Amino acid sequence: MNLKYLKEAVLEANLSLPKYGLVTFTWGNVSGIDANRERMVIKPSGVPYESLKSDDLVVLDLKGKVVEGQLRPSSDTPTHLALYQSFSGIGGIVHTHSPWATVWAQAGRSIPALGTTHADYFYGDIPCTRPMSEESIKGDYELETGKMIIETFDGRDPRTMPGVLVHSHAPFTWGTDAYDAVHNAVVLEEVAKMAIYTFALKPEVSFMNQTLLDRHFLRKHGTNAYYGQK
Amino acid sequence: MNLKYLKEAVLEANLSLPKYGLVTFTWGNVSGIDANRERMVIKPSGVPYESLKSDDLVVLDLKGKVVEGQLRPSSDTPTHLALYQSFSGIGGIVHTHSPWATVWAQAGRSIPALGTTHADYFYGDIPCTRPMSEESIKGDYELETGKMIIETFDGRDPRTMPGVLVHSHAPFTWGTDAYDAVHNAVVLEEVAKMAIYTFALKPEVSFMNQTLLDRHFLRKHGTNAYYGQK
Amino acid sequence: MNLKYLKEAVLEANLSLPKYGLVTFTWGNVSGIDANRERMVIKPSGVPYESLKSDDLVVLDLKGKVVEGQLRPSSDTPTHLALYQSFSGIGGIVHTHSPWATVWAQAGRSIPALGTTHADYFYGDIPCTRPMSEESIKGDYELETGKMIIETFDGRDPRTMPGVLVHSHAPFTWGTDAYDAVHNAVVLEEVAKMAIYTFALKPEVSFMNQTLLDRHFLRKHGTNAYYGQK
Amino acid sequence: MNLKYLKEAVLEANLSLPKYGLVTFTWGNVSGIDANRERMVIKPSGVPYESLKSDDLVVLDLKGKVVEGQLRPSSDTPTHLALYQSFSGIGGIVHTHSPWATVWAQAGRSIPALGTTHADYFYGDIPCTRPMSEESIKGDYELETGKMIIETFDGRDPRTMPGVLVHSHAPFTWGTDAYDAVHNAVVLEEVAKMAIYTFALKPEVSFMNQTLLDRHFLRKHGTNAYYGQK
Repeated sequence: MNLKYLKEAVLEANLSLPKYGLVTFTWGNVSGIDANRERMVIKPSGVPYESLKSDDLVVLDLKGKVVEGQLRPSSDTPTHLALYQSFSGIGGIVHTHSPWATVWAQAGRSIPALGTTHADYFYGDIPCTRPMSEESIKGDYELETGKMIIETFDGRDPRTMPGVLVHSHAPFTWGTDAYDAVHNAVVLEEVAKMAIYTFALKPEVSFMNQTLLDRHFLRKHGTNAYYGQK
Repeated sequence: MNLKYLKEAVLEANLSLPKYGLVTFTWGNVSGIDANRERMVIKPSGVPYESLKSDDLVVLDLKGKVVEGQLRPSSDTPTHLALYQSFSGIGGIVHTHSPWATVWAQAGRSIPALGTTHADYFYGDIPCTRPMSEESIKGDYELETGKMIIETFDGRDPRTMPGVLVHSHAPFTWGTDAYDAVHNAVVLEEVAKMAIYTFALKPEVSFMNQTLLDRHFLRKHGTNAYYGQK
Repeated sequence: MNLKYLKEAVLEANLSLPKYGLVTFTWGNVSGIDANRERMVIKPSGVPYESLKSDDLVVLDLKGKVVEGQLRPSSDTPTHLALYQSFSGIGGIVHTHSPWATVWAQAGRSIPALGTTHADYFYGDIPCTRPMSEESIKGDYELETGKMIIETFDGRDPRTMPGVLVHSHAPFTWGTDAYDAVHNAVVLEEVAKMAIYTFALKPEVSFMNQTLLDRHFLRKHGTNAYYGQK
Repeated sequence: MNLKYLKEAVLEANLSLPKYGLVTFTWGNVSGIDANRERMVIKPSGVPYESLKSDDLVVLDLKGKVVEGQLRPSSDTPTHLALYQSFSGIGGIVHTHSPWATVWAQAGRSIPALGTTHADYFYGDIPCTRPMSEESIKGDYELETGKMIIETFDGRDPRTMPGVLVHSHAPFTWGTDAYDAVHNAVVLEEVAKMAIYTFALKPEVSFMNQTLLDRHFLRKHGTNAYYGQK
């Protein structure tokens, strides 16, 4: 994938955020990384989606140096970079303050798997990070956010759990590319909404059957998947 | 009804799912059966609604053999087939993960009849199945889903109760044809939403008066119906 | 107001129900009465809004005899007629199953006045009727619904309380004409929604200050009103 | 900024209220003040947004005398004037009955800061006023509303807390100009919604970390802000 194509893909993914109702104003950003993992393309900071153009996107190397683009990159850039460096299997990242997922982040709670909609995409609880320490907040805050997410995934495979809730903040999702990351952001929002109402209707609801979770996740993912077309 | 007409009807019914807000991405499918109950038409698996065309639909015989169409049928095909074989009075089936009904399925609760909106379409509680056994999940899962629904309707008439909640999963609805099944899916979603908020407002709410339930259901259904035009 | 004009007004009011999101399918109807209170115009039963035309509307005398129109009037016609006969100050009536108001009806609870939005239109609690008796349900059900509403308003002025919740059923609203009745139906829905969430947030919330209720209602209604243009 | 430009800006801000889903019917108004703080432009009372034109707007001096325009100004005009006189740093004011914020006002509760979305715009709890006294309600009600808001901000800087909930009523927000005030009204609504659901999910949720609140607010505001473009 060349850089021009990547920029178009990241632009389209960014523009799909308001289309799917995931963002208010400029509260969200999507990035993508090239196949060689040498260049990241990300939305510029604070630019409205209505006027966003391909040339506004910012291209950085993996150390965070801007190599193309006139605008400042998203203020969340260090978080994106940290995730790409640590999660080798992902090609796109989304950050939004989509309301249903953000409610779980504000409550500081992981989203338990309660049904097959969840199981089709997220292989277990969608984790919420611990609260960030005073030192980290006062330090290189956005980088520390990335580190905290990575710590949360210690021992877990980010490819089977394509999202996280940052405590008192909001979600990040990822995927094989920018568009897949947006797809997972949409699913997370739907799953988060249904889980809130399931708890309202039945506060003592328990985690879904593990065998059912396996069946649905593996029906869509991995070598024995049989959902969709060949 | 010839097969060409049936395919057009099933296409239109599938396309109405996103129009009514019942589906996210490809999370839903509609099927229809011909008058002789020899052919079932169903959506192909994982194909987006925006690009769905009549020729993409898959035609199967009642044993599940594909007799027309190049694409894989919906992964839920064995569930649809089982229902048509057992419920002789139905001509169309819908499966979605529509959020309000799915919340009840995730909670593992039947939806009690709380008002006349419910009573106009569903003659009593809308049942939720039991949880599926480990063996069934590991076995022919989609067929077992159908069998579990049929077991839930033992002694009940599916024509007066055109829907079910599959435990930890989501709803199925049916009707006289594909479009009627979609109609009932829309009603189920509305009834499920109102029931959730009724319980939130009054946790001790009781089932509606049986005489009122009878009056409303029979006002719209059966030989003495007087709603609508002759 | 001649009959032709009344029919146009009632048509427009009916068509505004889906526009304001108050109805699913055909679940609602609007009627209007002429200035001499001799003719009522109402929606035909079960006809979709998309295809509704002025000539489809049904004109009845106040005894319920159809004097114009080829279609059956709404099955709720006897309720509308009873209200016009008893509430001399009203010129239009709306019945819908709008979800937020219907939730209160299903819970069997009146909506208490909790804020100035409510007070601007409804001068006190919006009452919910008692449950209907077995005899009334089995009898002339729609007429009995009207009688029960009238009983609920014994000693109250329907002009200062332009709506009611029918127990286990749904709301009726009214107004000076068909359009004003729709306006009040929209307000009722908004007020019902906000009251549900206010109780969720603060279960012990109390009725708003009576002086504030008076101030807001009388700011918009009566001889000393000063809201809007002269 | 000349008066013609101010009127256009206030018109556009008013028209954006329905666009953002903040108003039902005419339940909202926006005003703006000129740079010399000699003229306030405000929506006329009870005029629908669909037909609102620049010439309908009312221009007043700061004592409340109409100096331009044929229509009555919003009935809330004395509240707006009082705020401009007391809050020297603000250039635009919005009043709506947007539902999520109104729920908090009806519950009589301040909205605690629960996450970074809140912290990005509101530097601490969004305060709810005390209930208004009987004397004030019966007196110059709209002016008293303004005085009560000012009393609530005693010792607080309205520039870092651009909104308030009026007890049993609804929100006011403000900003550097009319459009910025609308922007803050949109954010308030989103924050109010997420806080309601956060409490539903976790009733014992506590105020967010103060250091995190500082970090986010100051990332967007003040001399060290680094969000957006230079």
